[in-house]
Amino acid sequence: MSGYGDIAHLGHVEMLTDKFEESLDFFTRVYGLKLSAQTETSAYLRAWDDYEFCTLKLTKSDTTGVGHIGYRAASPEALERRVKAIEESGYKVRGWIEGDLNHGRAFQFEDPFGHVFEIYFDTVKFKAEGADTPALKNNASRFHHTGAAPRRLDHLNLLSSDVTEFRRFMETCLGSRVTEMIQLDNGRIGGCWFTVNNKGYDLACTEEHGGGHGRFHHVTYATDQREDILRAADIFLENGVHIETGPHKHAIQNTFFLYVWEPAGNRVELANAGARLILDPDWETVVWTEADRKKGQAWGLKTIESFHTHGTPPVKAK
Amino acid sequence: MSGYGDIAHLGHVEMLTDKFEESLDFFTRVYGLKLSAQTETSAYLRAWDDYEFCTLKLTKSDTTGVGHIGYRAASPEALERRVKAIEESGYKVRGWIEGDLNHGRAFQFEDPFGHVFEIYFDTVKFKAEGADTPALKNNASRFHHTGAAPRRLDHLNLLSSDVTEFRRFMETCLGSRVTEMIQLDNGRIGGCWFTVNNKGYDLACTEEHGGGHGRFHHVTYATDQREDILRAADIFLENGVHIETGPHKHAIQNTFFLYVWEPAGNRVELANAGARLILDPDWETVVWTEADRKKGQAWGLKTIESFHTHGTPPVKAK
Amino acid sequence: MSGYGDIAHLGHVEMLTDKFEESLDFFTRVYGLKLSAQTETSAYLRAWDDYEFCTLKLTKSDTTGVGHIGYRAASPEALERRVKAIEESGYKVRGWIEGDLNHGRAFQFEDPFGHVFEIYFDTVKFKAEGADTPALKNNASRFHHTGAAPRRLDHLNLLSSDVTEFRRFMETCLGSRVTEMIQLDNGRIGGCWFTVNNKGYDLACTEEHGGGHGRFHHVTYATDQREDILRAADIFLENGVHIETGPHKHAIQNTFFLYVWEPAGNRVELANAGARLILDPDWETVVWTEADRKKGQAWGLKTIESFHTHGTPPVKAK
Amino acid sequence: MSGYGDIAHLGHVEMLTDKFEESLDFFTRVYGLKLSAQTETSAYLRAWDDYEFCTLKLTKSDTTGVGHIGYRAASPEALERRVKAIEESGYKVRGWIEGDLNHGRAFQFEDPFGHVFEIYFDTVKFKAEGADTPALKNNASRFHHTGAAPRRLDHLNLLSSDVTEFRRFMETCLGSRVTEMIQLDNGRIGGCWFTVNNKGYDLACTEEHGGGHGRFHHVTYATDQREDILRAADIFLENGVHIETGPHKHAIQNTFFLYVWEPAGNRVELANAGARLILDPDWETVVWTEADRKKGQAWGLKTIESFHTHGTPPVKAK
Repeated sequence: MSGYGDIAHLGHVEMLTDKFEESLDFFTRVYGLKLSAQTETSAYLRAWDDYEFCTLKLTKSDTTGVGHIGYRAASPEALERRVKAIEESGYKVRGWIEGDLNHGRAFQFEDPFGHVFEIYFDTVKFKAEGADTPALKNNASRFHHTGAAPRRLDHLNLLSSDVTEFRRFMETCLGSRVTEMIQLDNGRIGGCWFTVNNKGYDLACTEEHGGGHGRFHHVTYATDQREDILRAADIFLENGVHIETGPHKHAIQNTFFLYVWEPAGNRVELANAGARLILDPDWETVVWTEADRKKGQAWGLKTIESFHTHGTPPVKAK
Repeated sequence: MSGYGDIAHLGHVEMLTDKFEESLDFFTRVYGLKLSAQTETSAYLRAWDDYEFCTLKLTKSDTTGVGHIGYRAASPEALERRVKAIEESGYKVRGWIEGDLNHGRAFQFEDPFGHVFEIYFDTVKFKAEGADTPALKNNASRFHHTGAAPRRLDHLNLLSSDVTEFRRFMETCLGSRVTEMIQLDNGRIGGCWFTVNNKGYDLACTEEHGGGHGRFHHVTYATDQREDILRAADIFLENGVHIETGPHKHAIQNTFFLYVWEPAGNRVELANAGARLILDPDWETVVWTEADRKKGQAWGLKTIESFHTHGTPPVKAK
Repeated sequence: MSGYGDIAHLGHVEMLTDKFEESLDFFTRVYGLKLSAQTETSAYLRAWDDYEFCTLKLTKSDTTGVGHIGYRAASPEALERRVKAIEESGYKVRGWIEGDLNHGRAFQFEDPFGHVFEIYFDTVKFKAEGADTPALKNNASRFHHTGAAPRRLDHLNLLSSDVTEFRRFMETCLGSRVTEMIQLDNGRIGGCWFTVNNKGYDLACTEEHGGGHGRFHHVTYATDQREDILRAADIFLENGVHIETGPHKHAIQNTFFLYVWEPAGNRVELANAGARLILDPDWETVVWTEADRKKGQAWGLKTIESFHTHGTPPVKAK
Repeated sequence: MSGYGDIAHLGHVEMLTDKFEESLDFFTRVYGLKLSAQTETSAYLRAWDDYEFCTLKLTKSDTTGVGHIGYRAASPEALERRVKAIEESGYKVRGWIEGDLNHGRAFQFEDPFGHVFEIYFDTVKFKAEGADTPALKNNASRFHHTGAAPRRLDHLNLLSSDVTEFRRFMETCLGSRVTEMIQLDNGRIGGCWFTVNNKGYDLACTEEHGGGHGRFHHVTYATDQREDILRAADIFLENGVHIETGPHKHAIQNTFFLYVWEPAGNRVELANAGARLILDPDWETVVWTEADRKKGQAWGLKTIESFHTHGTPPVKAK
C-alpha cells in the first residue's frame, strides 16, 4: 500500500536565519509575504492566499538552512496511518510534539540526511479580519499588493548525498509519488521531484555536492502569472537583492522561475507552472538523462555554477 | 464514507453539433485543440498537454449540447467502489460499455436531469510521435501554437432545474466536494462548483431558467496565462467568432474567463485560475448570497442576460 | 504650415479635487504615483519614469475637473512659433505666466469650451537622488512597486459641445494631428483623438452630453504591460475604488483600458497600447461610423451609460 | 541644424540569406511575418501592423548579412534637406534609384563601414483586402496569430570598427539622436543607440570585434507584450530554432529581449519596451561605463560570448 492520498499537501517550512531583521524585512516588504504573528524567536509568515496561519516560519539562529518541514495529513485517520508506517519504517522518529502557533499536535521524524519532518492534521487556519479581509470571500486574505506578493507556498528543495535513499524515505513516510527525476550516467539519481497531490511537485531533492549534511537548497512560492515574476525581478533589482539566475523556464516541470538569495543567504524562488497539473493517477515518472540536461534549461540557459554548490548553511572550509 | 479520492479527474466531454465541419474547424484552427482521430461520426480532440487521447469528443448530431461526460477513476479498485455506490444510489444506471477510441470499459449512469455520465479507469494515453513529439519530454505532445492553444481540459458547466438534487447526485456518485456555491434568497441553490481533486472545480451546475432538460452551459479549457486569453480574444475577433462576455474575472473561483459560442451555438470558455488550488482537505464551502452576486463579477462586470438563458440545445418556443 | 513637430508632448494635467486628502492617498498609495512636492494647495505628482518633476498637479478646490493642461514645446524656437500662431488665431489668450514648481514660463490660452491650456519649454526635470535613485540609470527614478505604479503620463480626455470646433483649436494651436475620429450619422464629430508625436493620442475630445462646460472626462497613465492593468484591477477592488468599466480593449486606438473614479469623482484610466505607434508621417485619419461603434469595444463590451454622462465637475440639476 | 525630425522612421531592412527557402519558412511560419509579395530573388515581408508593404526584404544571396537599410523621410521637403546634407557630407553617395516593389524613388548612400542606406518618402502602403482585412479598421492588416507574430519592425543593429565615426555618420545623414551609449575605459565608444523619433532606438551600432566589414548584428520586431516573447521562446524551442540568449531584460533601453538565429545564421530579435518612449526633446544621452556593464543585463544575466563575436556574414578564418 502506497499511502498516496494520506498527506494533503506541504504545509510549512521553517527557515533559519542569522540575520533575522534583514530576512524579515526581505520576506515582508520585498518578497511580499504577510506576517501572521511574531514571537521572540520566530516570525510566522504566509502568502496572502495561504489558508493556514503560517507557511514560512522564520527563526532566529546562529546559522541558516531549514529547521523543519511540515506536511498536513488528509484526515486524522490518514495521519495515524502515516505515523504507523513511519514508526515501522526504521527511520529516526522524534515523536509527537504538542504543536506550535500555527498547528496542533504533530509527529516528527528525520530523513537519513538530517532534515526534520513533521506531519499533522490539526491546524490553525488564518482568520481574515479587519484590514486583512479580502474583497472576494473565497480568498484566504486580502491581496495586499506588497512586493512580489506570491499567492501561496509551492515547494522546497533539499540536498542529500543519496537521492535514491531519499526517495525511499519520501515514498515510505509520505506516500509521495515521483513525477520527474534525473538519471545520471553513473547510475545514481541526480534529483527527484515528489508530490503528494495534483501539483507537479511539492518537494525536490537534488544531490549534495558540497559535502554538507541536512542542507537546504531553496523554498518557493507560486505566483499567478509569469508576468508577476518579471515584475518581481525589477523589485529585487531595485531593492538590491542578489538575483542568482532567471527568469527562465525549467525543462523539468516546465516551471518559469526566478532565484534570489535572501539577506542571510538562503535561496528563495518564485515560480509559475501555468495550468500544468499532474492529473493522471498512473503517471509514469519522466526520466531526464545527462544528455537531456546538457541542453540547459528549457530555452537554453546554462545552469550557473552556484546553483550546484550553494546551499544553506554554507559548508565551512576545513 | 465520502468517496472523495476515488475519482481522479474529469476525463472528457462529448459535445454534439449540427454543424460538424464548422465546429471542427473552430476547435482545431481557432480554439487550438489537436485532432487525435476522426471517425464517420465523431472527431476526437485534445489540448496539446492533455495526456489522454481525447478530452473533447465532437459528435455529428441533429442537435447541440452534451452527449456524455467522462470521469477517470483513481484506480481499478476505486472504480469498483464508485460503481457499487452508484448502483446502490437509485440513480438511473445504463451499465457497462465496452469502451471507445479513447478509453476502455466504462460504467454509464444518468443524473436526474438527463445528463449521461461515465466513469472508467482503463484509458488510452496519447502517444506523441513524429510531428507531435514535444521538445520537452514531460509534455504530452508538442506545443503547436495554433489558435488559442489552451493547455488542458478544465471543467464543464451543466444546467439543472434543481441544483440541490444535482449536488446530492455528484456527492453520491463521484464523491465530489462542493468548493463554492450560490445560496439564493428563496432558499434554493443557484449554483454549485464541484471538484474531485485539487482544482477549484471540474464541474459546475447552475439553475436552468429556460425550461430545458439535460442542457449544457459550457465547456472550458485552461490556458497557462491570462495573456493567452487576451490574445485569444483577438483571435476570436479576427475569426468572426461570437464573443459573449469577457475577458474578465469571476468573483466565484477567481477565474479569469472568456466565453464564446462555437459555430453550432455551444458555449465554450477559456479560463485561467492562476496558481489557485484547493489544498485544504477540510475546505469549507464558500457560500455566495444574492447580495454578493449583485456586485457583479470580480471587477464589477454585470453578467449579461444571455449567460442566464442560453444553453444547448436551445429550448424551442412552443 | 501645420505646426506639427513644434510641440514635443503632453506635459502635465492639473486636476481639481474637493477631497484632497483622499485623492492624494488614492494617487500615491493605490494608483501608484510618486509625490515630488507638496504646497498648501497642491500636490505635484509623477509616474516613476516620467522625466519631468510633475505630470499630475492635484489641487485643492471646491469642485472637481481639470485646472489646466500643459504641453511642452520641442524647443524655445518652436514655442515662439506656437505662441505667435495662437495669438493670431483669435482664441482667447491668457498670456505668459512666470512658471510653477514644475516648469518655467508658460503661455496660457483657452479653448472655446473653457479648458485652460499652457505651453512651455523650460521645465523642471526630476532629479533622482537617495531612495529615488533607480537601479538602471536610464530610468527617471526608482521603480517603487507601489499600487498600480504606471510608467508615465499618457493622455487626457476632455468634453466639448462641438468637437469639430475643438479639432480646429487643436490643429491651430498645437499643430496636433487627428489619428482617429468618430463620424456621427448626424454629420457631427462624436470624438477626436489627437497627437503631437508618435503616440496614437495624447488628448481625446468627445462630445459633451450633460450640458456642462469645460468639463473633464479622464486622465490616463500608461503601464508597461496589460498584466499590470489586470493586477491593478485587483488593487482597486481591494481598496474599495469604484471600477467603472474594464479591463477591456478599445476598438479605437487598440488600447487595453481600465477606468476608475478617484475619491472626488474624477475619472482616471490605466491604459496599455502594446507596441502600437503612429510612425507614418502621412497617416490618414481612421474614421469610425456609428455602425462601427455599435459593435461595442474591441471584444464586444458595450459602453456603459455613465461613460457617456459622467464628467467632472458634475452638472448640477437646476 | 540637426536635421532631427526630417526622418520619420526606420522603414525596412534587406536581409541576405544563402538558405532562402529555410529563411522564408522561418520568417513566415515561425517568426510570424506576412508575405506581401515574392519575386525570383526576394520575398517582401512585413509584420501584421506594419503600414508599409514591406519592412523586411529577404534576398537570395551567396552570403548573409544586411543588403541595405531604408528610412522613410517625414515629407518630400525633409527628404530633399537630407539629400542635400548627405551630398555635402562627403560620405559615399550612390545616388537615386527608381524604387522597388515597396517604395518609390530613394536616395542611396553608404556609411564608412560598407553598410548601404537609403532614404525615401514615396512609399507603398499595404492595402488590406480579403483575408488580410483586419477586424479593427485602425490596424494595418489582420492579426494572423501565426508563429510569434510581432506587431511591427522595431530596430536593427550594425557592427562597425569605429562607433564614434558611425555616430557622426548617423547624426549628419539622418539627424539621429543618441539616446544611450557605452563609454569604454579605453576612450572608445562601445555602442550607440540612435533614434529619429520617440522610440528609444531604431538603430544600434556596436563595435566590431571579429575583423569583419559592413557586418550585421541583428534585426528586431516589437511584440505588444512580454508574454508574447515568452510564448515565442516555446515556439522557437518546438521548431528547433537556435535560441542564443534570453528572454531577459537589457539594462540599456530597458528592453525585454530574445535572440535567435534564423536558418542562414542571421541574428533576429523579438523585443518589448513596455510603455517606454523618449518624449523629452532635450534628452541627455545616458552613458554606460564598463563598470556598469559588468553587472550584466538588467537582472544579472551575463552576455554570452557569441553575442560579441557572431555577426553576418561570418568572418572567414584566413
